[in-house]
Amino acid sequence: MRRITGEIRAKLIEAAGVSAYFDDEESLLSHSYDATPMLQAMPEAVIYAQSTNQVSAVLKICHQYEIPVYTRGAASNLCGGTVPVHGGVVLVTTRMNRLLEIDEENLTATFETGLTTKALHQAVEAKGLFYPPDPGSMLVSTLGGNIAQCAGGLRGLKYGTTKDYVIGLTAVLPNGEVIHTGGKLMKDVAGYDLTKLLVGSEGTLAVITEATVKLLPKPQATSVMLAYFDDMYAAARTVSKIIAARIIPSTLEFMDHGTILVVEDYAKIGLPTDMKAILLIGQDGHPAVVEEDMEKMRAICMEEAREIKVAKDMREAEELMTARRSALSALARLKPTTILEDATVPRSQIATMVEKIAEIGAKYNVRICTFGHAGDGNLHPTCMTDARDQDEIERVEEAFEEIFAAALELGGTITGEHGVGIVKAPFLEWKVGPAGIEVMKGIKRAFDPKNILNPGKMFAGQTRKRVVINR
Amino acid sequence: MRRITGEIRAKLIEAAGVSAYFDDEESLLSHSYDATPMLQAMPEAVIYAQSTNQVSAVLKICHQYEIPVYTRGAASNLCGGTVPVHGGVVLVTTRMNRLLEIDEENLTATFETGLTTKALHQAVEAKGLFYPPDPGSMLVSTLGGNIAQCAGGLRGLKYGTTKDYVIGLTAVLPNGEVIHTGGKLMKDVAGYDLTKLLVGSEGTLAVITEATVKLLPKPQATSVMLAYFDDMYAAARTVSKIIAARIIPSTLEFMDHGTILVVEDYAKIGLPTDMKAILLIGQDGHPAVVEEDMEKMRAICMEEAREIKVAKDMREAEELMTARRSALSALARLKPTTILEDATVPRSQIATMVEKIAEIGAKYNVRICTFGHAGDGNLHPTCMTDARDQDEIERVEEAFEEIFAAALELGGTITGEHGVGIVKAPFLEWKVGPAGIEVMKGIKRAFDPKNILNPGKMFAGQTRKRVVINR
Repeated sequence: MRRITGEIRAKLIEAAGVSAYFDDEESLLSHSYDATPMLQAMPEAVIYAQSTNQVSAVLKICHQYEIPVYTRGAASNLCGGTVPVHGGVVLVTTRMNRLLEIDEENLTATFETGLTTKALHQAVEAKGLFYPPDPGSMLVSTLGGNIAQCAGGLRGLKYGTTKDYVIGLTAVLPNGEVIHTGGKLMKDVAGYDLTKLLVGSEGTLAVITEATVKLLPKPQATSVMLAYFDDMYAAARTVSKIIAARIIPSTLEFMDHGTILVVEDYAKIGLPTDMKAILLIGQDGHPAVVEEDMEKMRAICMEEAREIKVAKDMREAEELMTARRSALSALARLKPTTILEDATVPRSQIATMVEKIAEIGAKYNVRICTFGHAGDGNLHPTCMTDARDQDEIERVEEAFEEIFAAALELGGTITGEHGVGIVKAPFLEWKVGPAGIEVMKGIKRAFDPKNILNPGKMFAGQTRKRVVINR
Repeated sequence: MRRITGEIRAKLIEAAGVSAYFDDEESLLSHSYDATPMLQAMPEAVIYAQSTNQVSAVLKICHQYEIPVYTRGAASNLCGGTVPVHGGVVLVTTRMNRLLEIDEENLTATFETGLTTKALHQAVEAKGLFYPPDPGSMLVSTLGGNIAQCAGGLRGLKYGTTKDYVIGLTAVLPNGEVIHTGGKLMKDVAGYDLTKLLVGSEGTLAVITEATVKLLPKPQATSVMLAYFDDMYAAARTVSKIIAARIIPSTLEFMDHGTILVVEDYAKIGLPTDMKAILLIGQDGHPAVVEEDMEKMRAICMEEAREIKVAKDMREAEELMTARRSALSALARLKPTTILEDATVPRSQIATMVEKIAEIGAKYNVRICTFGHAGDGNLHPTCMTDARDQDEIERVEEAFEEIFAAALELGGTITGEHGVGIVKAPFLEWKVGPAGIEVMKGIKRAFDPKNILNPGKMFAGQTRKRVVINR
């Protein structure tokens, strides 16, 4: 990788504009990390992208001089996805945040990728429409980040994830060429599906500057309940019975005993701390369907749960949701370092996996609580630790390695919604095999032969260690 | 491209087994064409694939000797997708037709790709489950073909297409290596999404031998109605008003005047032949939702339609569906050659596009009727012609070229669900641009550097002519 020399710097400033180029120490430092703990590397420049053309101009220069480019939205990712491990440019998209169009006839929205997820939610919901993906970071995350990582969220079970909604993209290739994929089209099979390939490509193939997503009518009604269980297998059986009853709830979230303890201590919402598992169960849609499904699910819960609490109105529903949504905040305040992972298994394997995680935590003497999306098998084993305790961190790394292996053994995957980045790179081959890695590397070379886009990610895994990087 | 010599032939027979290898004239001839008119080329051998391992063994030999491999299911595609234009092996998947598992807990089905679409529908529906993709060819088409082409169908508007359901694949790379992508997972972001990339890759990247799809609960109720319109714009306004009312019907199909005339003449189902357009409108789901949506849509139709006919029961519903489903058969008996295309536009542009198609048909003095999926903008302009009339065929080609250009001008695409194959290859660059073509060629090279899988397709378009190929 080359460095940004004075000559290259002058060209980049000319291309980006002086008000968009920063290389003071504060700017570099504040763009040297993301939401992932224990990962940091200093870039050489920070550029605030303002338009597709400007991104193209910047990439042409970086391509010519082989300068790494790390595209960054809100940097709320949890896999080290935006950490500039090889220096170069951090290309920030947050100034490209215009909502370009809500097309009510075609049920699509088109926007610049620096727009936040929440802003899109609010804008489309004001028109009676609905954009389902709701990652935990949605208040701050950009849609570009959601697209790069294929963000999921609580509604994944019923509504799918980001890739199920993105139908068109404007993207800048590493050489500065601009491509347009898809369109306002529910059906388009003209060549390989570059749209779906770019979703989840983690900034390694192109810089996505605009996107078109499909929208749904906003559900007319929504309802939630909490169910408390004496043991985790009763909760898992409940999940199975709901699905066996041919109901797909909009929300089917899980918290284990450790999470319950910590959330109650933090939020004081009256959770029974002697319970071993909680399910948060919701449905949305037509009022008749919501009522019927909730009643059916309540009856199923009665067979297994100690207690059930159905929200009487939206305010109570919000309160119940708080229990689940505050899980990460509650866990994060316990110890200096919180590592939130996302090992994922087929839905039928949830109980086995939660038990495995608890066993592995005990084996390595590290504190791991588990919560997550029971409905789609996407679990978030979360470790409270301290980055300064080298011995404990090593045990944490070993525990997570064993957790990923366990997930794969159960037919799962190393990451359900957070992405590979730096953190999962050592384990990608476990999931996709050597032939899969070779194919993926071939795709990377086809897009980015000079490896300037987000280098050091996805395929870089030589070590399982989550290392603090110092340049 | 190399030819199959005696030595290669012996190796292929050893790999495939003598009962699976055919190179008699009848076998070659019957695998020299597919459902696409006016395209034919003779292969040198036909191999009936029996297992992933056997496919791998065959591909290793073909890779070593650079023998083209044309994977073929039921050959019901309409883009020349399985025509062996460079000779070599036609690899038929229809013997690999086992339904391996319906997993009711994870709501997935796993099967060998030679299974027919209809067989999967029947098996999952018997368990109260639902696999939505329903291409017109579903009685005979294989799921492997559906996956290779990303087949759509009548339910695309509400339920999406094949790519929205495929979550895991077993595929053999050109060099014989086997990869497994995805799994029984609703969320999986471990590396590039090879599953979605292989869906719609038209047999050019890998031979897909097994697949896992996600299933939905089977809708409890379904209802349909026909609405007759004095002019096409009234029908188009009705489509817009339904969507504006925040209803996503399960079926929203369109037939133009020419199609109505022909269908009535063929099926004698009492269609009013003075009507300029018919919409077939359906909804499925919870009975309360179906009733409410159908009533709302009936009221919307009343504003624009001359007459409305609501099915009283399932038998009547089937009868109404017959009108739409028999469109192709009815048109096909008019003239010796029927060319069914699938230019697609954003839903809001349907009326403009239908009028454009009629104008273009008149300009070139060729008979084109249009029907298709109004709800998702996926139109099927269908030309009744005669392959032996060289002069007319040239006008047909020019007319379709202008139709594709018109679709693109309206923000559409050259193919919504049929694929590129040979027929659309000359127009692919119009849709994706030179940079898009380069990226796609790069992906092709990454998978298949020797270009042995389905060579002569997708990128081969040097001429717009639909030529009868003779080797």
